[in-house]
Amino acid sequence: MMDFATRVHNHNYRLDPIIRSLLDTDFYKFLMHQFIWMLYPKVPVTFSLINRTKTVRLAEIIPEAVLRAQLDHARTLTFRENELIWLAGNRFYGRRDIFRPEYIEYLRTFRLPDYKLETVDGQYVLTFEGDWAAVTMWEIYALAIVSELRSRIAMASLDKFELDILYAQTKTKIWNKIKKLKSYPDMRLAEFGTRRRHGFLWQEWVTDAMANELGRSFVGTSNALLAFKHSFEAIGTNSHELPMVFGCLADSDEVLKTAQYDVLAKWQEVYDGELLIILPDTFGMTQFLRDAPAWASKWTGMRMDSKEPVAAGEEVIAWYAMRGEDPRKKRAMFSDGLEVDLMIDLHQRFRG
Amino acid sequence: MMDFATRVHNHNYRLDPIIRSLLDTDFYKFLMHQFIWMLYPKVPVTFSLINRTKTVRLAEIIPEAVLRAQLDHARTLTFRENELIWLAGNRFYGRRDIFRPEYIEYLRTFRLPDYKLETVDGQYVLTFEGDWAAVTMWEIYALAIVSELRSRIAMASLDKFELDILYAQTKTKIWNKIKKLKSYPDMRLAEFGTRRRHGFLWQEWVTDAMANELGRSFVGTSNALLAFKHSFEAIGTNSHELPMVFGCLADSDEVLKTAQYDVLAKWQEVYDGELLIILPDTFGMTQFLRDAPAWASKWTGMRMDSKEPVAAGEEVIAWYAMRGEDPRKKRAMFSDGLEVDLMIDLHQRFRG
Repeated sequence: MMDFATRVHNHNYRLDPIIRSLLDTDFYKFLMHQFIWMLYPKVPVTFSLINRTKTVRLAEIIPEAVLRAQLDHARTLTFRENELIWLAGNRFYGRRDIFRPEYIEYLRTFRLPDYKLETVDGQYVLTFEGDWAAVTMWEIYALAIVSELRSRIAMASLDKFELDILYAQTKTKIWNKIKKLKSYPDMRLAEFGTRRRHGFLWQEWVTDAMANELGRSFVGTSNALLAFKHSFEAIGTNSHELPMVFGCLADSDEVLKTAQYDVLAKWQEVYDGELLIILPDTFGMTQFLRDAPAWASKWTGMRMDSKEPVAAGEEVIAWYAMRGEDPRKKRAMFSDGLEVDLMIDLHQRFRG
Repeated sequence: MMDFATRVHNHNYRLDPIIRSLLDTDFYKFLMHQFIWMLYPKVPVTFSLINRTKTVRLAEIIPEAVLRAQLDHARTLTFRENELIWLAGNRFYGRRDIFRPEYIEYLRTFRLPDYKLETVDGQYVLTFEGDWAAVTMWEIYALAIVSELRSRIAMASLDKFELDILYAQTKTKIWNKIKKLKSYPDMRLAEFGTRRRHGFLWQEWVTDAMANELGRSFVGTSNALLAFKHSFEAIGTNSHELPMVFGCLADSDEVLKTAQYDVLAKWQEVYDGELLIILPDTFGMTQFLRDAPAWASKWTGMRMDSKEPVAAGEEVIAWYAMRGEDPRKKRAMFSDGLEVDLMIDLHQRFRG
């Protein structure tokens, strides 16, 4: 039967919100957020979101009112009871009670703080300024909003039939990639596309496809909402944000140099096990490894993000060996520009 | 909002009818049906539908009750008023009044007659026996029902996700074919997949895709329901059925020999113009052309169906030339096993 309610509602659609849940962010934000909230909640910080691809003049593509409507909508959100229960009660990386009850209580009243939106030379400059614990959470929501708005506008010129073909083609393409990955059952991979996604529903489709088809090779998703909704593993530990802020807080070159280690020393006071993953490339990987404290090589593993991955992998293996650690007992993760063929190359080179 | 009516209706789904309209058949059936109804309505005939691919044991794949339910459902159908109006009022091949008012009145009370369903050696034998005007219409409905039931059963083992991927892949494949055909804007092609379709809705999608993308290259569909619903041109003239029945009626070798021409002589008493298309291969094309009466080469064109198409095309060109006709002013149609590459080959060879 005609669903009149939906049809009439659609006539009067005011907003199709991109962020509909505060869980719709990368899981590592919660680990870092708790860390910040416990230790550095009031540190004053300023984050800016800028578009590095200058040829794409985002401010000429996305109307400012549309961007503001999405950002403003995200600010209306609070965590739902079932989301907080999940964060508090779920097992992450096999461990319960990762999040302290006090942090969960803090989240209960959490809302995103205000933002500043300016236009400079055809680009948006989106700035979040305030207490670190307040503004840090904006990162992924803001990135996902900008990314999804851009793709929505790109889709706007296509008619229903062209859209149908486009999604059919894209599903086929993704499926071929998944099939290719399936030939390497020892590979382990996670989905972490939230920040540059086409859209939440598309990210959900792709993640679901990977989970359905890849079996144990699919270890989870960085997206906490998808993990919650589908009982996937939530994946991620920490990012460049932590050493970057620590670096900014340094008041001498000497402190700046040790900031990248100080933050990890603090991290291991809060977390352990699988959450002890080093991201060594914030200020360059080679200097990081050379001067790293002895405990760094005891951590569970390392995530190679910006350096050419084969060189980075070899460098890390040599470093572990030099530090008297068996590299085969360490976890190596790659997370930069991973197209399927590169994933297979890295897997074949570094497996075992 | 939840559409409770649809949901609850689906719980109690008794039948998903394959044939939902008597227009859901090839348009040529109506031309032939009117011809038969005008001239030979009471000729007693028997048609059998058998599966030529013996390795596919249809009776072991399609439950008999399921097949009967679909055939029985088709027998409940009558033409709707708007369908009759369309047949009576639409312009076919640029001409109005192709169908006589008396024939339309006859259709108004038309229902499909009974059928006989037997199982022999793992195969269904579906027989329609009676007055020619009554049983002829079963052809396409019965073929489409068997074809669609087989594909439904093949789909039954796939879960929702696998189906989604399958249709995405198939849409992509069809789209690539359409794109390839689009490079030949002088080509003219029609859709005529009804009898071997995956399903009506899929046939509709493909036809719609062709119409959307191929512009003037897409000349129409053989399916009268799709033509009616989407204002496509309805395509088709006549089939082997006519000379076959005329052949069966022959009581001497001499009459048998001329039967293939007699039927066309009768056809041109009823139709003219674009409907004068010879299908010369019922009893072999070479003998047909050699002994054809003088008026045959005056007809609008020829449809090559069973003979190897390049040889058939060359033979027809030579024949027209020998009969003093300019082959370039004749219409040549190919309708057998037309995969895209063959279509392009034939187009390039015989265009102009």
